Formats: sequence, structure tokens, C-alpha cells
Amino acid sequence: MSAASPDLIDLYSDTQTRPTPGMRAAMAQAVVGDEQSGDDPTTLELCGRVAGLLGMEAGVFLPSGTMCNLIGILTHTRPGDELICDHQSHIYGTEAAGAAAIAGVSIRAIISPHGIFGVQQVEEAVRPVSRTAPRSRLLSAEQTTNFSGGAVWPLAELQAVRDVAQQHGLKCHLDGARLLNASAASGVSPADYAAGWDSAWIDLSKGLGCPVGAVLCGSAAFVEDAWQWKYRLGGAMRQSGVLAAAGVYALDHHLEGLRADHENAQAIWGVLSGCELFQFDPPQPASNILRFTFDPSTIGAEAFAAGCLTQGVRVRSIGGNFIRVTTHLDVSASETESAAQTMLSVALALAEGV
Amino acid sequence: MSAASPDLIDLYSDTQTRPTPGMRAAMAQAVVGDEQSGDDPTTLELCGRVAGLLGMEAGVFLPSGTMCNLIGILTHTRPGDELICDHQSHIYGTEAAGAAAIAGVSIRAIISPHGIFGVQQVEEAVRPVSRTAPRSRLLSAEQTTNFSGGAVWPLAELQAVRDVAQQHGLKCHLDGARLLNASAASGVSPADYAAGWDSAWIDLSKGLGCPVGAVLCGSAAFVEDAWQWKYRLGGAMRQSGVLAAAGVYALDHHLEGLRADHENAQAIWGVLSGCELFQFDPPQPASNILRFTFDPSTIGAEAFAAGCLTQGVRVRSIGGNFIRVTTHLDVSASETESAAQTMLSVALALAEGV
Amino acid sequence: MSAASPDLIDLYSDTQTRPTPGMRAAMAQAVVGDEQSGDDPTTLELCGRVAGLLGMEAGVFLPSGTMCNLIGILTHTRPGDELICDHQSHIYGTEAAGAAAIAGVSIRAIISPHGIFGVQQVEEAVRPVSRTAPRSRLLSAEQTTNFSGGAVWPLAELQAVRDVAQQHGLKCHLDGARLLNASAASGVSPADYAAGWDSAWIDLSKGLGCPVGAVLCGSAAFVEDAWQWKYRLGGAMRQSGVLAAAGVYALDHHLEGLRADHENAQAIWGVLSGCELFQFDPPQPASNILRFTFDPSTIGAEAFAAGCLTQGVRVRSIGGNFIRVTTHLDVSASETESAAQTMLSVALALAEGV
Amino acid sequence: MSAASPDLIDLYSDTQTRPTPGMRAAMAQAVVGDEQSGDDPTTLELCGRVAGLLGMEAGVFLPSGTMCNLIGILTHTRPGDELICDHQSHIYGTEAAGAAAIAGVSIRAIISPHGIFGVQQVEEAVRPVSRTAPRSRLLSAEQTTNFSGGAVWPLAELQAVRDVAQQHGLKCHLDGARLLNASAASGVSPADYAAGWDSAWIDLSKGLGCPVGAVLCGSAAFVEDAWQWKYRLGGAMRQSGVLAAAGVYALDHHLEGLRADHENAQAIWGVLSGCELFQFDPPQPASNILRFTFDPSTIGAEAFAAGCLTQGVRVRSIGGNFIRVTTHLDVSASETESAAQTMLSVALALAEGV
Repeated sequence: MSAASPDLIDLYSDTQTRPTPGMRAAMAQAVVGDEQSGDDPTTLELCGRVAGLLGMEAGVFLPSGTMCNLIGILTHTRPGDELICDHQSHIYGTEAAGAAAIAGVSIRAIISPHGIFGVQQVEEAVRPVSRTAPRSRLLSAEQTTNFSGGAVWPLAELQAVRDVAQQHGLKCHLDGARLLNASAASGVSPADYAAGWDSAWIDLSKGLGCPVGAVLCGSAAFVEDAWQWKYRLGGAMRQSGVLAAAGVYALDHHLEGLRADHENAQAIWGVLSGCELFQFDPPQPASNILRFTFDPSTIGAEAFAAGCLTQGVRVRSIGGNFIRVTTHLDVSASETESAAQTMLSVALALAEGV
Repeated sequence: MSAASPDLIDLYSDTQTRPTPGMRAAMAQAVVGDEQSGDDPTTLELCGRVAGLLGMEAGVFLPSGTMCNLIGILTHTRPGDELICDHQSHIYGTEAAGAAAIAGVSIRAIISPHGIFGVQQVEEAVRPVSRTAPRSRLLSAEQTTNFSGGAVWPLAELQAVRDVAQQHGLKCHLDGARLLNASAASGVSPADYAAGWDSAWIDLSKGLGCPVGAVLCGSAAFVEDAWQWKYRLGGAMRQSGVLAAAGVYALDHHLEGLRADHENAQAIWGVLSGCELFQFDPPQPASNILRFTFDPSTIGAEAFAAGCLTQGVRVRSIGGNFIRVTTHLDVSASETESAAQTMLSVALALAEGV
Repeated sequence: MSAASPDLIDLYSDTQTRPTPGMRAAMAQAVVGDEQSGDDPTTLELCGRVAGLLGMEAGVFLPSGTMCNLIGILTHTRPGDELICDHQSHIYGTEAAGAAAIAGVSIRAIISPHGIFGVQQVEEAVRPVSRTAPRSRLLSAEQTTNFSGGAVWPLAELQAVRDVAQQHGLKCHLDGARLLNASAASGVSPADYAAGWDSAWIDLSKGLGCPVGAVLCGSAAFVEDAWQWKYRLGGAMRQSGVLAAAGVYALDHHLEGLRADHENAQAIWGVLSGCELFQFDPPQPASNILRFTFDPSTIGAEAFAAGCLTQGVRVRSIGGNFIRVTTHLDVSASETESAAQTMLSVALALAEGV
Repeated sequence: MSAASPDLIDLYSDTQTRPTPGMRAAMAQAVVGDEQSGDDPTTLELCGRVAGLLGMEAGVFLPSGTMCNLIGILTHTRPGDELICDHQSHIYGTEAAGAAAIAGVSIRAIISPHGIFGVQQVEEAVRPVSRTAPRSRLLSAEQTTNFSGGAVWPLAELQAVRDVAQQHGLKCHLDGARLLNASAASGVSPADYAAGWDSAWIDLSKGLGCPVGAVLCGSAAFVEDAWQWKYRLGGAMRQSGVLAAAGVYALDHHLEGLRADHENAQAIWGVLSGCELFQFDPPQPASNILRFTFDPSTIGAEAFAAGCLTQGVRVRSIGGNFIRVTTHLDVSASETESAAQTMLSVALALAEGV
């Protein structure tokens, strides 16, 4: 069964969602103009909506979350600066070294179990000011923590690392690819999470189910700088309202769905955590992501993922013998239940086959 | 009257087109998947269609023509290399210095009247190989020549500069933002223009009338490298088929419209060239772009553009007291005629007012 | 005869000087320390001397003039900025595209006959502020103009381009590789030339006859930033006082020699300008550089340089069928006279041979 | 007592050495030419000598070891590549993020106690090839390990990490700032250490006692590429033979001194290791570097360094409550003994003062 098969239950990522009929209709009816001239009303509406949601002055629509992180870095730093983030963060390992390649920025990675690090780790990562050291200039945190297993930063811990970083003169950037998942999980508003951060963004093409795009927010001056980088990088589009309309629709109709995704993740955990083959890390999912591993002498993650795929379930092997499973809008509760049973049987079969 | 007014006759750029109902329907029905996994069938179809049109092995869908140029440069060069192009080219003056900022590439600009330079100019621009000189590594030509007035390179001249550049070891990149206009004007196929170039691209959001996107083509190896830069720059999207569907639709339905745009440009020229206030440069439009200037002591370009806008016609002042007028899908023959009369009367009024 | 032959009269460049016995003695006796700790007294003395000479707050010792230009650019700009300078300037064609490769800065080159451009040309080169244009941020002028033929900017013209650039928000950088030659020629002090510029530097290894080094000056804050780039680029040395001692010695003993170099240049011109084969451009040398060309159908510059070398005189073919001849400390008046006669006879022989 | 006081026993770094009278005499008599034209015989001699010592085809003289590392990276990589090295390595923390700022290269840091990591750690650090991951492209190892405490890589371990890196397609760069110390300690020749590495260098201004410079070696093609970067970075000098002469002199006269430096380090350790306040890490010095720490609740490293300085001994606080002590040519056995006693008494006094 191929990854694109219509019968596949695709838990590879929440980026796999296809637009719903309602979302497609909204896109087809979008009022549009040239976004580069500031004339696309739907894109302007979306940026205003997201900025409001995050409690920030302004926002800019971008083709991807990767560009949100890249422009955040480019705008806050100069070449030779250093960025502090977790070692498993998307910005360090999954953005093709854009921070170094394009912004000339070095990364000092903090090692933490689930992407949630502490004040002391930030203190240790900040370098003393000298001519010879990289200049510590930017802190980035992921809310929720993607490859570290979908953990949700408690608000107080997020505020604490922000404060210590800013005391050292660093800017703070919140990678909110799944910030709305964090809010759905905790009840803390996105604006409360983003308060005091110098930039923050949300992705539209993950849990919200849109085909393309993300919105990066900050002060008006930050967004003006970000716009020039958007243009320079080739991220300035024309009648982007056709995409932004999906975002506006999702904010109106898909926020509730995030809670269902989280329930589905718990359901999978309910099935699998009883089987001792599955070692969950974090021990229980906090949002729409589950991460587990196996004793590598018993079950290899690659083999497990391959085995599931032949049974119509797609999961992701993410290195270190870890599997990441992500629930989303295109996977129903019953499909989730079915996928969990498949995963269980694949693991048992692999373990028996040893 | 604002730039976004529905009654405006907008000749500012062919990027101002809004998707037609047929195009919107095609987008709404697009079969989509995750383009990053190679699973979006409509995006794959579009890339194949454009690669075929240009006679190249492969193509990659990008959010903008600016990203096509940037990735062409990034893939063909290393930092410290030098790019040769015309001094009015989009790559030099209108891409926010992305070549230098992101690729570390210097630009050696050739001065030519309409963006069409010759073999000797290329020879002079190529630097002797030495430790101290920038390394001449890439030639870029625009077909048609945007800010130089929409001129069309004769095929033989385009081949000649390509050949001399390649003899000196340079790669050749064809900025085909309006390549289809060149073909519509000359009858030479896009593949004949692009033959032998190391990369070439067409824009979907100009004459073709799509909201977003462009397709960059080259060898399979080139496109594989380009894909990593697309990802690194943040140009990798998800269900991009919603945009690609517009491109496929345009290739099926909008190619003919380019000829009408050219006829409209000629019609404007027919009205204005009889008035000695208008100094056309090039002397007659070759595609969908007209460029003219005025004696600056009589009429300032900024004042002319402002005067037209108050009369419901938007044109673009592009520096050097030049006006650029661009016809496109959203401007009918009768609107064109009306706009020409408006331009004439505005110029006469400004000249009288001196 | 090889380029390194002891009997060669080497007019290739004023960089060819070897340290004199007095200079070597000063170097051997230099009191030194670690310059990176601010502990090399001789380097500190040199930086203070040069800063005083240029009327600036502070200076930093660097291993080359190329690094002075590069750090000037790096400190005044950010990636995506644009630098305005003459098309023949060292910064554009002879620094291996360091501005683009390392600083991410684009260059907008002004075309002028002798490297001395005017206010209107600067005005035209400054780009209007927009998201899509490179950001005009830095002006650089060479005093004297190296490959343009050693011309000396009149003080008023230098001030005029500085003023217009600063009015547009640009920083101004004075490439003073041969600034002391300009002062020797005009009687205007280096400080008067450098007044109001944001950075300026002089080379020690040209007319001053030192083996290695240059000093870049500006405000104290500028020099602090420059120091981090010096370190990052690998230009931070240790007991650099052994080199700086040569600079201090040269400032004490070699300034007078610059006038002799200029007289020698005039002497060469006196011999050659009477022969109509030699087309001087500028028409007469203003400092220690002569530049001339030939009718290329009669004498090729490469052949001329090769012919001179076989006769024991080294001159430099610099492209465009131009020859550059540079007088300096290691070439006496009588050698100069002899070299002029050699050049004359080589040219006549080549012309006869046609 | 200031850091530059003549009575100071300066154990801050082996970069603090001042040239000896013999070395100064050699420099004063150096035969020189223009190194950029390949005409400086002494620089050519030095490069040949060092290339021979390292068993490599060619070498290039550079103003600093930092530039050796930077050019090694620039030549082996392209922007977006990733470099693997120890987290305490000079390249990561003490080169002002030049790898990212100038080469666009990300660093994946391995955590090891003394800078000597293993094959498995390299395996884990190499990223799978994908569009989204940084491209693992270069391994760098320090021999000896500077801030990790002067440990010496056993030859077999050094070969093992080289082999595994090359099997994954990475290039290998040997940061040999103190490679000659490793050879002096182990008896393994520099060429044996450097065999099979794609580039390696030694510093002249550390244990060898020269004022300025380092020599970077590799294949002839590597050195040709390195030369263009040397020029572009501003590291191309003129009559560099005045510096190279010191290097030649040191290779002839100062290699033996390295063993004395190591004996002096052992002598310090002999005095201090008996006092339980001093926690040595590594437990015993292997070369000319000692690293120790204290219980931070008893003695702070900053306070210890300050206390020693008031007693005429300069040591270096390097973070993490560590002190680094480095012996070198300018510190005799008796001064070493005296310094050890001072350190002991300062520690005891601080401990009593708690």
C-alpha cells in the first residue's frame, strides 16, 4: 500500500490533511488581491485574526512554518549570533541548516528529554560576551515539542526561560507550529503563551487542516522587517487570499477538532500502553503526538513502520528507534481505534518473529 | 480611487490578475497530497507539463518567480561567484539583493538599452580566472525583458550569449517570467528558447493569470538540488495541488489570451505613439509591456501615474522618469482602449499645465 | 628574467617593496605582547598614530587592506544591503567578491573614467526604499583611484559625494590604500580627506614600504565591532608588534619618499608622453601610478608587459589593453629613467614589428 | 599586577610567548618577496617544511589558526552542510561562530569528557541524507584537545573516527594547533597523526613561540582553493617571509622545548595534585595544558585566577569553574615551580577564607 493510497490511515504527520469540502468552498469564493501591494483582503484578514489570537501587533502570511522560523531568525539576529534551542527541535535538525546557511547563525543545542528545558540550562548555554565567542542572541522554544513527543510546556516554565533569556539580552522566538494544540490541551490561551515573546507563529497546515501556509507575528516593526525577508527569500506571493481563506475557515471551524485529535491520541495510548513492548516517552501523550520506542533487540522502528504500512497504517520512524504517531483531522475515532489495533498486532508479530 | 478598487483598469502589472471562475473551480476540485513526500498528483502533473513545455528533464513548483531565480543561483554557484546579467534585470534590482544576501554571489551588470545584450558584452564581463577576481560562473537572461520594456530576445541572439558563456565555463539561467509571452509574440516554442540552458522557469501568476506560483526546470540532478534549497528557504508547501491546479488550468485555457494581451498593448501604442509627448523605448511594444518616458521638464512620471490613477487607470512609474504599462487577462480590449484615451488626456493636461 | 629577479626594476605594484635595513632593525627590536589581549604596545602605538593621522577615534591593525575593506563593509551593513562604488574599484573586481560572499552585500557600480564620480551619479545609484530593492547602505571611494589610474579626488568632490550619501542614510567608507599618496600630491592632510567619513584606512605595505599590514580607523564603537570581525575572519594575530614596528618606522621615515615616487612617475611620463604610441589615461599621472593604453591593433598590453619583462622591467597589464606602472620606494630615480627608456624602446619595437 | 607586566609568570596561554633573540635575528635577515605572487622564498620554504612534516602535498601560510579552521571549513563544505566536532572545541565556542557566519555551516557538537570522542558518537551525529536535514559533511578533531584539557588522542582512536566519517562521505579536518605537542608527548610523528586527513594544520604562535601565523596543509587542489579564501578573507599578505622566518627558525630550534613544557606541566601537577582542593580533569596532564576545577562552594575559578594574578601568576578561568594552566617557552622550570606554589597557597587561602 503506497503512502498516497486513499484507504491508508495516515498517522505520519498532521501535515497530511486534505482540505475539506467546506474549506475548498471558502477558498473558491475568496476575495483576493495582490498581497505584495497589501491588497489581498483575505490575507489581511487572516493576518489580523492570527495576530489577535497571539496578542501581537501584526502578522505576515508565509508559505511554510520553516519560513516562519527562518525569518524569525533572520530578523532577530546578525551573522555570527547564536541561537539556543533544544537539540531535537525542528529548527536544528529538520530545516536543512537554514539558520547557518542563510542567517549565518550558530546553534547551541540544549539536551532535554522532551524538549522542555529549564532556566539553568539556558543560563549555561548563554555565552559570556567576548570577541571570540558567538554572540548569544536568540532563544527558540517549541510549543508543543514536535520530535520530542508532543509535550506541552507549562506556562510558568515557558515564561521562566523567556525571562532569563531576555535578562541576558536575547530575543525570544516561539515556534508555535502546534501552539493551538497546546492551548487545546491546557486551556491556556495562545495569547497567554505568546505574551512577552518577540515573535511567535502558528501553522495552518498541521492540526488546522489547511493545505498551505503559516502566520508569523510580532511587533509592527518586526513584521515590516520580516516582509523584506519574505520577499527576498521568494515567499512573497500574489493572490494568496486563496490560501488565506482556508486559514480563516479553519479558525472558524477546526479549532474544536484539535480536542478530538487529542482524544484520539489518548485512545491509541490506551490500547498500546498496556503492552509492555511499547515504551512511551513521554509516558503519556499530552497533545496529538505519541512517541514510543522498542527494545531495539526485539523490534526495530523501521521494521515496525514498514510492517504497519503493509497493514494500511502509516507511522513515522524518527531516528533513535523512536516512532512518532500523530493524530489529525483526517483520521476519525474509529480509524484511530483500528490503527491502534494494527500497531499492536504488528508489534506482537515482530516480537514473536525474533 | 484606490489601487484595489473594482472599477480600476489595472495596468500596473500582469501580476494583478484574479483567478477566473473556471480556474477557481479547477482549484476547488484539485486532487491533492503532500508535495514534500512527492504525493501531490496535481503538483506533479504541473511540473511535468512545464518541464515538457521547456524541453527539460524535471521541474519544481515554487511559491514565486523570485524563488526560481534565487534557487537557480544557489544551485549553480558557490559564495564568491559572479553572475552576469543586464543592469535592469529583476535579479539585480528587484529581488532585494537575494543573490548576494543568500547565495553570496556578486553581480556584474551589463548595460544595454532593452535588456538584450551581445556576445562582446558577455566576453567583457567574464573575468579572467585569478585568486583575486570574483569567479564568473552564471549568466542570466530575461525573456522577455521586464523593466527594459518587454523586448523579445531573437532566438539567435539568445543562443549566442548562451554559447559564449558556456564556452567560458559559466552556467546559463533563463528567467522566463514572461517566456510564454515571448513565444506568443514570436512563434518560437518555449522549448526552443530554453534549449541548452542549464535552468529555466515560467511564472504562473503573470500572463497566465494564476494566483500563486512558478515552475523552475532543469536536469533531474539540478531539480534534486533545487528541492533542498526550496525546503531550506521555506518554499516547501504541503497540499500545493490547490495552487498547481490553477497552473494546469491556465496551460489548458489561457495561452491564447497572451496574444490578446499583445494586441491590447499594440492598441495602446496605436493611440499614444501619435502624440509626441510619449517617447516609447523600445519604440514599439513586442509583447504585453509598453515602456515610455516624457521630457521630464514637461511631465514627471510620478505625476503622470498619479493623474492616471485618479482617472481610474493604474500604471507604474519605474524610475528614470519611465512609465511601464502591462496588459493582461483581466483587462479587456475595450478597457484597454479606454485606458489609452485616459493616458493620452492625462499627459496632455499635464503638458498644458506646465 | 623572472619576476623575483634581484636585478628587475619592478613597477608592477608598490606592494613589491622589501623592508629596508632600518625598518628591519626596528622590527627586530619591537616591544611586543599579545594583541588579542590588548597587550602589544607597538601595535597599540601604531593604531594610535594612524587614528591620529586620520582624525579618528580609534584604529585596528589588520593583515591586509583587503581585510580593511571587508571589515568596513561587514561592520556598516547587513546582508541584503547594497554598496555603491566605482566599477574599477578594488572592492568590486579585486577582492574575490568578498562583499557578496562574506557580507552578503550587493554592489552597484558607478561608471566613471578615473574612479572619481559625481553627486548625480550617487543620486542615481541610491535605490528608492522598498521591500523589493536592495537597501542602499554604504558608499566607498578610493583615494587615490587604483586601477582607474591613480587619480586624486579633489577634496571638495570627495566631500560632496560623502554628503549626498549620508543625506540618503548611507555610511561612507574611504578606501585609503594610497591616501598618503593623495596627501603627498595635494598637500591636503589625511585627516582633512577622512573628516566625516564613517571609516577610513591606510595601507602600510604599499608606498610606505612595510612588509605586511594596514590600519582601519573609525569611531571607538566601529573599531570594537571591527575587532570581532577581525577575530572571526582569522585576522587576529598575537605579537603583531613585530609588524606594527615597521609601520611606526615608516610613518617616521618614509612619508617623504612618497613625493619622490610621484616625481619618478612624472619622469616616466615625461619620457613616454612624447611618443604618440602611448595614450595616457588619465592624461598625466597625479600620484605614483601611471596608466596608459595602446591602439590594440598596434600593440597589445600583454605583449608589451612581456616585452618589458624580458628587458628587466616589470609592469602590469590590467585588462582593457591598459598598462599600469607604479613607482615606489624600491625604485630609484635612475632606475625609473632606465625603465622609461626600456618601455619606450619595447613599444617602438612592437609597433615596428606590426 | 597587570597582564602585561614583565615580572608576571604568564600561564594564561602558550600564545603569550615573545620571540627570542635568535628568532628575531632570523626574522630580520629573512629573504622576502611578495607572497601573493608566489615570490616570497621564506614563506615558500616554511610551507614546504610544514607540508613535509604533515606528509601532505602543499601548505599555505595564514595569519592565525582561526583562519586555518575557517578556510578548512570553507573549502570542504557548502552552505547548509554540517560539521561534527566536540562541544568544547575551539571551532565551536571560540571562533566567534565563523563557521556559521562565513561558511554557512551548522555544527553538531559531540559531548565528550576530554574532547576525545568515539566511533559510535560519530555514527550518531551523522544525519541520514534527506532534503530536510543538514548535510553531514565534515569532521573536525583537535589534537591535542585545548579547552578539554590538553588530552592527546591515541593514534588508533583518531584513525577510527576518521575512517567512520569518511565512510559516511565526510571530509576530515585535523585542528593541529598543538599537534606538535601531541607528537612530543607520544612520539607519534605529526605525519602519522595527519595521514588520511583531508586537511591539517599547525600553529606557529603557540608552543613554537613565533609571534604570528599558522600553516594549513592538504592536497595541492585543496591548497589552491584555500588560497582564494585566504585572499577573499583578507589573509593574503605581502612580504610574509618576515613572519615565516620565525616559523622556520622554530622548527629548527624549538621542537625540543615542547618536551620541557610538558615536564613543567607535570611538575605543576606534582605540586597541586596532592592537595585535595584541586580536582584535575583529565586526572593528569598529557601535554602542556592542565585543567582543574574546585568545589564551587569552596573556591570560584574567577576568584582563584584573580588571586593568582595579584601574586604574579596568570592562569585562565575558562568557564564551568574550570582553570586552564598552560606551560610554554617563556616560562622556565623554576618559574613553573614558583607558580605552582603560588597556586597552591592561593587555593588554600581561598578555602580558609570561606
